[in-house]
Amino acid sequence: MIKKNLTINGVPRTLIVNEEDRLSTVLRESLFLTGVKVGCGEGQCGACNVILNDKLVRSCVTKMKRVPDDAAITTIEGVGTPDNLHPLQASWMVHGGAQCGFCSPGFIVSSKSLLDETPDPSRDEVRDWFQKHKNACRCTGYKPLVDAVMDAAKVMNQQMTPEELSFKLPDDGRIWGSKYPRPTALAKVTGTCDYGADLGIKMPPETLHLALVQAQVSHANIKGIDTSEAEKMPGVYKVVTHRDVPGKNRITGLITFPTNKGDGWDRPILCDEKVFQFGDAIAIVCADTLKNARAAAEKVVVDLEPLPEYMSAPAAMADDAMEIHPGTPNVYYIQKIQKGEDTGPCFDAADVVVEDDFYVGRQPHMPIEPDVGFAYPGENGRLTIHSKSIGLFLHHAMIAPGIGIEPEKLTLVQNPAGGTFGYKFSPTMEALLGVAALATGKPVFLNYTWYQQQTYTGKRSPFFINLRLAADKDGTLQGMESDWTVDHGPYSEFGDLVTLRGAQFIGAGYHIPRIRGEGRTVCTNHSWGSAFRAYGSPQSEFASEVLMDMLAEKLGMDPFDLRLKNVYRKGSTSPTGSVPESLSLPEMFEKLKPKYEAAKKAAQQSSNDAFKYGVGLSVGVYGCGLDGPDSSQVKVCLNPDNSVTVFNSWEDHGQGADSGSLGTAHEALRPLGISPENIHLVMNDTSRVPDSGPAGGSRSQVVTGQAIKAACEMLMGAMRKSDGSFRSHDEMKQENIPLEYTGSWTAPATNCDENAQGNPFAVYMYGVFMAQVCVETATGKTRVDKMTAVADVGKINNRLTVDGQMYGGLAQGIGLALSEDFEDLKKHSSMMGAGFPYIKAIPDDIELMYVESPREHGPFGAAGVGELPLTSPHAAIINAIYNACNVRIKRLPATPDKVLAELKKM
Amino acid sequence: MIKKNLTINGVPRTLIVNEEDRLSTVLRESLFLTGVKVGCGEGQCGACNVILNDKLVRSCVTKMKRVPDDAAITTIEGVGTPDNLHPLQASWMVHGGAQCGFCSPGFIVSSKSLLDETPDPSRDEVRDWFQKHKNACRCTGYKPLVDAVMDAAKVMNQQMTPEELSFKLPDDGRIWGSKYPRPTALAKVTGTCDYGADLGIKMPPETLHLALVQAQVSHANIKGIDTSEAEKMPGVYKVVTHRDVPGKNRITGLITFPTNKGDGWDRPILCDEKVFQFGDAIAIVCADTLKNARAAAEKVVVDLEPLPEYMSAPAAMADDAMEIHPGTPNVYYIQKIQKGEDTGPCFDAADVVVEDDFYVGRQPHMPIEPDVGFAYPGENGRLTIHSKSIGLFLHHAMIAPGIGIEPEKLTLVQNPAGGTFGYKFSPTMEALLGVAALATGKPVFLNYTWYQQQTYTGKRSPFFINLRLAADKDGTLQGMESDWTVDHGPYSEFGDLVTLRGAQFIGAGYHIPRIRGEGRTVCTNHSWGSAFRAYGSPQSEFASEVLMDMLAEKLGMDPFDLRLKNVYRKGSTSPTGSVPESLSLPEMFEKLKPKYEAAKKAAQQSSNDAFKYGVGLSVGVYGCGLDGPDSSQVKVCLNPDNSVTVFNSWEDHGQGADSGSLGTAHEALRPLGISPENIHLVMNDTSRVPDSGPAGGSRSQVVTGQAIKAACEMLMGAMRKSDGSFRSHDEMKQENIPLEYTGSWTAPATNCDENAQGNPFAVYMYGVFMAQVCVETATGKTRVDKMTAVADVGKINNRLTVDGQMYGGLAQGIGLALSEDFEDLKKHSSMMGAGFPYIKAIPDDIELMYVESPREHGPFGAAGVGELPLTSPHAAIINAIYNACNVRIKRLPATPDKVLAELKKM
Repeated sequence: MIKKNLTINGVPRTLIVNEEDRLSTVLRESLFLTGVKVGCGEGQCGACNVILNDKLVRSCVTKMKRVPDDAAITTIEGVGTPDNLHPLQASWMVHGGAQCGFCSPGFIVSSKSLLDETPDPSRDEVRDWFQKHKNACRCTGYKPLVDAVMDAAKVMNQQMTPEELSFKLPDDGRIWGSKYPRPTALAKVTGTCDYGADLGIKMPPETLHLALVQAQVSHANIKGIDTSEAEKMPGVYKVVTHRDVPGKNRITGLITFPTNKGDGWDRPILCDEKVFQFGDAIAIVCADTLKNARAAAEKVVVDLEPLPEYMSAPAAMADDAMEIHPGTPNVYYIQKIQKGEDTGPCFDAADVVVEDDFYVGRQPHMPIEPDVGFAYPGENGRLTIHSKSIGLFLHHAMIAPGIGIEPEKLTLVQNPAGGTFGYKFSPTMEALLGVAALATGKPVFLNYTWYQQQTYTGKRSPFFINLRLAADKDGTLQGMESDWTVDHGPYSEFGDLVTLRGAQFIGAGYHIPRIRGEGRTVCTNHSWGSAFRAYGSPQSEFASEVLMDMLAEKLGMDPFDLRLKNVYRKGSTSPTGSVPESLSLPEMFEKLKPKYEAAKKAAQQSSNDAFKYGVGLSVGVYGCGLDGPDSSQVKVCLNPDNSVTVFNSWEDHGQGADSGSLGTAHEALRPLGISPENIHLVMNDTSRVPDSGPAGGSRSQVVTGQAIKAACEMLMGAMRKSDGSFRSHDEMKQENIPLEYTGSWTAPATNCDENAQGNPFAVYMYGVFMAQVCVETATGKTRVDKMTAVADVGKINNRLTVDGQMYGGLAQGIGLALSEDFEDLKKHSSMMGAGFPYIKAIPDDIELMYVESPREHGPFGAAGVGELPLTSPHAAIINAIYNACNVRIKRLPATPDKVLAELKKM
Repeated sequence: MIKKNLTINGVPRTLIVNEEDRLSTVLRESLFLTGVKVGCGEGQCGACNVILNDKLVRSCVTKMKRVPDDAAITTIEGVGTPDNLHPLQASWMVHGGAQCGFCSPGFIVSSKSLLDETPDPSRDEVRDWFQKHKNACRCTGYKPLVDAVMDAAKVMNQQMTPEELSFKLPDDGRIWGSKYPRPTALAKVTGTCDYGADLGIKMPPETLHLALVQAQVSHANIKGIDTSEAEKMPGVYKVVTHRDVPGKNRITGLITFPTNKGDGWDRPILCDEKVFQFGDAIAIVCADTLKNARAAAEKVVVDLEPLPEYMSAPAAMADDAMEIHPGTPNVYYIQKIQKGEDTGPCFDAADVVVEDDFYVGRQPHMPIEPDVGFAYPGENGRLTIHSKSIGLFLHHAMIAPGIGIEPEKLTLVQNPAGGTFGYKFSPTMEALLGVAALATGKPVFLNYTWYQQQTYTGKRSPFFINLRLAADKDGTLQGMESDWTVDHGPYSEFGDLVTLRGAQFIGAGYHIPRIRGEGRTVCTNHSWGSAFRAYGSPQSEFASEVLMDMLAEKLGMDPFDLRLKNVYRKGSTSPTGSVPESLSLPEMFEKLKPKYEAAKKAAQQSSNDAFKYGVGLSVGVYGCGLDGPDSSQVKVCLNPDNSVTVFNSWEDHGQGADSGSLGTAHEALRPLGISPENIHLVMNDTSRVPDSGPAGGSRSQVVTGQAIKAACEMLMGAMRKSDGSFRSHDEMKQENIPLEYTGSWTAPATNCDENAQGNPFAVYMYGVFMAQVCVETATGKTRVDKMTAVADVGKINNRLTVDGQMYGGLAQGIGLALSEDFEDLKKHSSMMGAGFPYIKAIPDDIELMYVESPREHGPFGAAGVGELPLTSPHAAIINAIYNACNVRIKRLPATPDKVLAELKKM
């Protein structure tokens, strides 16, 4: 232990620290400067950036012994405060720089350091700086961040006034359709937004720190678990194993399809008989400090009998493969699709047939914030669990029987989440916390390392797709035959659903009169399949969108023309046989056409032997909602000061649940003339809000939005007087009129039948993507120079939020296309190893265009947005690579080595 | 556990808390808002004041379940920040409102709340507010705080500009003699100064929390200590008893006088064979949290054999009293005084003789901050202990053998201290921390409750004095006979020294040609005697100053005239036979004379049957230094930027060691033309600074000040070129001239001989005090209406600091006179129970006058200051009570019941 005298944010401080402690730990845990966020913990994300003696450092890899005595340190808390914002913070808010906001403090501190050195940087200098300092953002696609720095610099250089940079409310007071900054932005840009890890370290001192004992193999029988040595370690309160779980010790898939051969109870909370995948939790050490918990976890002895590890669907489908879950076949669910007449005759008669195999792999979500949560017992056996859950009521039902608590005694709360992108559809953390809190009777806190985040949360499920298309010689699609195999890892949770998505979205966007196909869900020992933005469609549409390009080539048509010919028009039906609710795709293509022509021309002119330029297209379609009659409930309440509070469980991944709720409620309540500041949001606490369903499938703006609208209309109905004016709160009280109203809405949709036919979604999103790439022939390295997206997400609630979702989704599409993977448990376990896209991987030139066709079943015409930009942009990039250099990558990601190998074959 | 959504300093926060937790705990430990100080922890001091929904509350007694959800809370951190001060904070700095500074955040938050309600208050409204809200200050005498609020209000009401309120450097750049705000003021008024409890909760998470097992009786044999149940309690690492102490387990008095019958090794760190006083530490429970440590401490079983409890000196001196320390008589030290001829003949021949018995009791120090500290092991067996120690090098030697560590491996550091007033001359906390850290190998943290502070730290040693004075009929003193008995509690630590003080200061200030007397130190079972401001003189001078009034009455002289006749003049000698170094007392009396006459007249005119007014006087004298050749060392260093760093161990009680060091160094270095900002202070860490001795006996400004001057002169000597100009750092380096110089200074003084004759102090402080009181005849209640002090503390270094010391010392004198006591272990164990003086007990009218006679042996003519104002002001008050109503209280404190009883006798 050493004493350090430091000046922190201008204030002299004396600190007693361990020499080996990280600066980030000291700043966070010894000074509660929790604006210093710890993401990767390995110096790869920059969330922990602080300025140390005028130099930007990653505090998570700066040991205290390396911090000079009397050093000056600036954290986000020293850059500016909520009532005294730095121009960078103000600019971050106005440009939507904070989505989940977890990276914002690190980026802003980094930007301050840049502007200290270079007061008037170019956009490229900003990008180079963020690249050099490894500032990683997973939400924004970086462009808004560069915009924010440029405008902040202008304000600081007196080239722009602070007023010019601020949001201006339109004259009509309407925020619907505007760029109203999200309500949580202020807290996010000032470092005062407390995420799970921040709240966790602010828990009372009796809180126990948890460390997991995890499997280091992917498949084994458990012969014994010996916790005796661990229990003797200093600071240990209890080592929790499956023996301490009073419930069924299973996380249930809950909505398992009837034809699923499993029963949905296959996932242990704490492994009892078997290990099913690498990282599986076997025991939880509960101790007074994290160090003690981790040291004791090392002492738990697990006696394992190794079993064959089936690390992909083909391996698990082999004849000699054992059943991973004894009693349930490894292929445990079959999904058929049958639309229209049999495809056999049409394929026989078709002018052109194309066929190929495609593979989209185990894309990792890679939020900057690793998974985190805490739980605490309350009075009368109550248990409250805080986590990043994006399905609070769903998870409540999924975990209560497993941990062994009466449902009415369990409360789930969502903390501000530093990005989920879908992985938090799985309630792993929640169940572990619940078990530990019940077993100890104490508050408990668990914060994954980023390695644990990567290796022990669900991943996008790989699809192996064989696809055939038949067309007339004029390019009119006649039929499609599909075969898809879904590697869903060891746990069945929603595995049937994602397999159904193959039926719904392979070939989506095009009228294909005849479809036959079969998909299957396969149990393996690789990471379990979880929800991931655009769930099922990036795999499905990759196959059909690349195959469409191959068909165009075979037909000698421009891929643009082939698509335009076949996209939904009057009379078209989707793969599920339903009539599209919006027929805007032709208009979108027309909008894109001049840009496409220019891009093609530029690519041809630019290409040379060293660098090949190309342009690619894709169509993206995704449904808004869970299948069938999806519903939400929302409560509103009129307050004594005539403000209105909206209560819902619109969970926030970072996508903007606050912005969505506020914008929708404000639009609904406009007859009252209420200002946005007078609409309060109470969100995401099952003890306080009604069930608005999970935040997945781009359902929230549509389904929860409609429920907000319904609730607001009920309230206004009660407030309305005979002359059309509205009663005040006091008048309502006087007349004894209730002040609270719960609105609900159910989508007018039907579940698909056994052949995947039906009308599963009342509202869809549509997009056309264009990628412009450059391939370096010497290395096979692909650079995306520009992405253009034309989107129809209905009427836009908040433009800042929608733009942000589009930028961020496209960036993840680029990652999916070129670099991201989680196949190799070692190599892919870090951000850099897994191909996380830093700023230089994402073009600064991203162009967004909207066709706002109002949706009948969306509130004020809105559809969802979050998942559209990740449906198929990777297909456009792959098509562009082919256009550039005749290399067709059908197994993602298109890493330089793969492209180079193909180039060498020529 | 409950979830609370609160807006704290304008920022929305979610917190998970125990319902029973105190708001102060949550703000401090869950949000690290350590500007919220916890003093008494019982709602009696206001240090923890915060504003909760526009209402001032004491957060230490506000349970979380009583904090409404969505409440808004403002702490000092939300009032203003170091770079954006609130006018109250700026005003606090300029008026010297922060001495120790521990109460400052609470006072400033309280003042903000007042000004929010009453923007333009009168001084009385400010005083009423602080009284109502129990804002307690032990350092400042409150007047500077009222001044600060009044000026802050003026700034806020635009009646004064912020510039008018700020300190202005004189044109010559000289800060010596100015009101330059103390360097630590900014941190203190903004709540960013981290005291021991603040640093403790910012320690790494492996830090163990300590709870003491303490004796609940005052005298007993220990038959057994059973820790087995405690060791099984949750979170317990170790229960440390005397068996775990590798050293001698004793705190040594170190400088025990040769004729002391004890050996100075009587004080156990952890009791082994006996309990000697209430609160004695028997075991230390080391656990992960404070709650767990305290719960386990309850389970330690101590088997005690009760022994007779000797709770005062007379009881311990009884013939049948057993030896408290077997082998050492209870009367263990005798101090004689013999000055001049035998007193017998002169008493026989004297015109007038007066004699009486006097008692000054166990005054408690009552700092707002209870004792606190922490310790941590380092590499190679090093141990560092942080505490409030005001004698770092002294304590180092006092505890090293007892805890069993090689001296070179032990470092002591002083934390910012929230007031000590001398009690921290005893290294109790330090030894306990050292033992616990060594026994566990872990960092450890111990924070007393205020109850522990009061019951288990040393107190002023009661003196029982019989005194006789003989005088001519013209009032010339002829002789004095004294007998004094010192109740020093069970531990001998410096008991001989304080007994010597009786010889040195009974009758001080007057030329008394013949003195005979004997004092004795008695071991008892009440609280051990520790240092306390003015050490020994308030007891000694109370007797002689009250007896002087009795003599004046008997002579028919005005007490003013009697004093003036006898004070030191040319030819006078002190009780120790030395020649006073300053003969300013007659001048001081002349200065006071018109005020005294006016006060007498006003008292006579105001008195009526219900309220009697009176005026009283006293003379105060105290020596600056430890007896004899006291010395200090100080290092200075020239830095690369040509700034200078001063290294010393001038410990800070709150008196202003920073101000003293800076002012002296700046005056010494003025030939360099250096600005105060370019003088840095490194203080109070035995691993970094030389031994400047303890901060006691008003020695620091003189002895350490001279060492600062010497070191600075050595540096300047090395820097000086032949032409009289000075070398820069770079020039020194080029010429290979050393940059560091250690200066030392030793007082030209001699230790007293066995008859207390000698020249023990090179420099003294002198004062004349005048009290104006009002006694309510119906209740006996005394109110001090005004205090006037004329002080000669030599040339004044910092006027703000000196004024502050004067105000604060006088306030403690008022407390000593009227209310303060620690006799009853139950009744006197809280601030209110022990008679802590709140603002309405201290007059707003305090007048200070200085006679700045330069001291030959003080740096730049300065003497000390801190102890002068507590030498005898209580005697002036007691004399004023007599003047008002003919009641002479000779046994302090003069509580209403005592005065009323005397009034009733008339």
